Amino acid sequence: MAVYTDVAADELAEFLSHYDIGELRSYKGIAEGVENSNFLLHTSAGSFILTLYEKRVAKKDLPFFLGLMTHLASNGINCPQPVKNKRGEALSTLAGRPAVIITFLEGSWPRKPTAVHCAGVGQALAKMHLAAGNFDNARENTLSPGYFDGLFEPAASRADEVQPGLRAFIAKELAYLDNSGWPFKLPVGIIHADLFPDNVFFLDDQVSGIIDFTFACTYYLAYDIAICLNAWCFESDCSFNVTKAQAFLYAYHSERALTFNELADLPLLARGAAMRFLLTRLVDFLNVPEGALVRPKDPLEYARKLRFQQGAKSIRDWGIDVSRLNA
Amino acid sequence: MAVYTDVAADELAEFLSHYDIGELRSYKGIAEGVENSNFLLHTSAGSFILTLYEKRVAKKDLPFFLGLMTHLASNGINCPQPVKNKRGEALSTLAGRPAVIITFLEGSWPRKPTAVHCAGVGQALAKMHLAAGNFDNARENTLSPGYFDGLFEPAASRADEVQPGLRAFIAKELAYLDNSGWPFKLPVGIIHADLFPDNVFFLDDQVSGIIDFTFACTYYLAYDIAICLNAWCFESDCSFNVTKAQAFLYAYHSERALTFNELADLPLLARGAAMRFLLTRLVDFLNVPEGALVRPKDPLEYARKLRFQQGAKSIRDWGIDVSRLNA
Repeated sequence: MAVYTDVAADELAEFLSHYDIGELRSYKGIAEGVENSNFLLHTSAGSFILTLYEKRVAKKDLPFFLGLMTHLASNGINCPQPVKNKRGEALSTLAGRPAVIITFLEGSWPRKPTAVHCAGVGQALAKMHLAAGNFDNARENTLSPGYFDGLFEPAASRADEVQPGLRAFIAKELAYLDNSGWPFKLPVGIIHADLFPDNVFFLDDQVSGIIDFTFACTYYLAYDIAICLNAWCFESDCSFNVTKAQAFLYAYHSERALTFNELADLPLLARGAAMRFLLTRLVDFLNVPEGALVRPKDPLEYARKLRFQQGAKSIRDWGIDVSRLNA
Repeated sequence: MAVYTDVAADELAEFLSHYDIGELRSYKGIAEGVENSNFLLHTSAGSFILTLYEKRVAKKDLPFFLGLMTHLASNGINCPQPVKNKRGEALSTLAGRPAVIITFLEGSWPRKPTAVHCAGVGQALAKMHLAAGNFDNARENTLSPGYFDGLFEPAASRADEVQPGLRAFIAKELAYLDNSGWPFKLPVGIIHADLFPDNVFFLDDQVSGIIDFTFACTYYLAYDIAICLNAWCFESDCSFNVTKAQAFLYAYHSERALTFNELADLPLLARGAAMRFLLTRLVDFLNVPEGALVRPKDPLEYARKLRFQQGAKSIRDWGIDVSRLNA
């Protein structure tokens, strides 16, 4: 949840006068998103989301995110659409920050995802991967294993403050990932890279939209799958739910057939994906700014998921019935 | 900003099935209100606010607040209306907490109030006082001077952590208020008691509504005026803006004529009103719960305002031209 920057009504009204979206009726800071400040606007033309990008998002990346949303929508994916101002620009400035207005998506994210939700997100993710196939822009994945040492280095000396032994646990896993033969020949495309339940909206158990492309980048499609398996298919006690994992994978596979290599590499990708969130959460946890209205997410949740993934050499070890996943 | 309790979509949809306000389309936790959890709902019938009352609000007081909102609205005051469920109840339960749905008011609260806003709130406050005149319920003001010693006592020993000397400053002022001849013969009625800028919505510089009656109670009407003067008529550096104060008082007086006693007692009431917010903010500041997503408000803002008010024996000392306030 986040509202880092507040905006005055007259300032916002002036900003909106450069758009064709009616008169401002109300706006509320909303408790969603942890990287940016988000407001739900009501205007005489309907509902919109205003995002002010805070420091952690590189301004140079914004055209990629905005272009991707436009591309996905014109290829049948329901996601927020950047609204252009009268000059034809989607990216503007408000309160000294890069600012974007996007369309409002109805729907609610599942607080307690079921296997039905997991199937929904599996199918939606595959459709998104396919729809992004001909997007002609790229962005490096700076949260992949090649970057992990650099992420960990400034946090390493304080990791044991979070849990005794955490530093050694991470260092050992990083060494493993370095020597594991991390995949290098998997299908590459645009991945969402942060498709947690709070970024997928449902109406009547059907996916109604995907939001927040702030981490989208160019990488192995199967890394996105690994991120989702870790985010959607564990219970709150960090036990793995194979029913949800199957529902997710079967639904994905029915839209975009997984290759043999993708299936073979999934457990290793899931270890890397768990490490990615363990590291960024650890860094965030150790660096909550004074007075920040953000509850840092628990890094240890991802240490527990990582420990589970360390025990799986094959998706058969997860309990997956692979007969429906034949390539 | 506050969302203490989250709600699952299926739980909320079930809850809404007991109301006649359409199907749930979306809901967002909103960053407004510090006492409760608030959600902005979109349903097929429109927009609504769902409030879950957390521990700090006494459940026994809720019927008073809800009844007051209904009474005010039927007497021409634009404020949120409690929505009754199919059983005719405005007060229900969700996620184990008292829960209320109210109508959504368009409008925005002024982040930087001008003299025009101050005049608007002055007029609106007087209208509210008049409209509540025949409300047949009462609630004690437990944030008035008789309660200040009890509020201060648990915080006193740590007050100097906030500012050296604060404990003695407060103790001395409490002694002064005890011996000051606190008013006892002023007009009494229903006061809002928390009419800060974030509780007054404007559209095009006109008041469009008043919200959040969680502190409403039965007390001197002029105490409400004193609270507003402290909340609206100081600049961010805590200097008093007499232009705003005049705009506020003249507008109030034009709707409901202030009595001689009210005018004479206003500086003392303003000291008491400043102490009320100094004390509750001090207590909150010293007791931020672990992990709370609430930025405590600055108690020292009200220490500075109190120091200013200590220097005024009459509203003439504020610089008010009293010729327009003759009773």
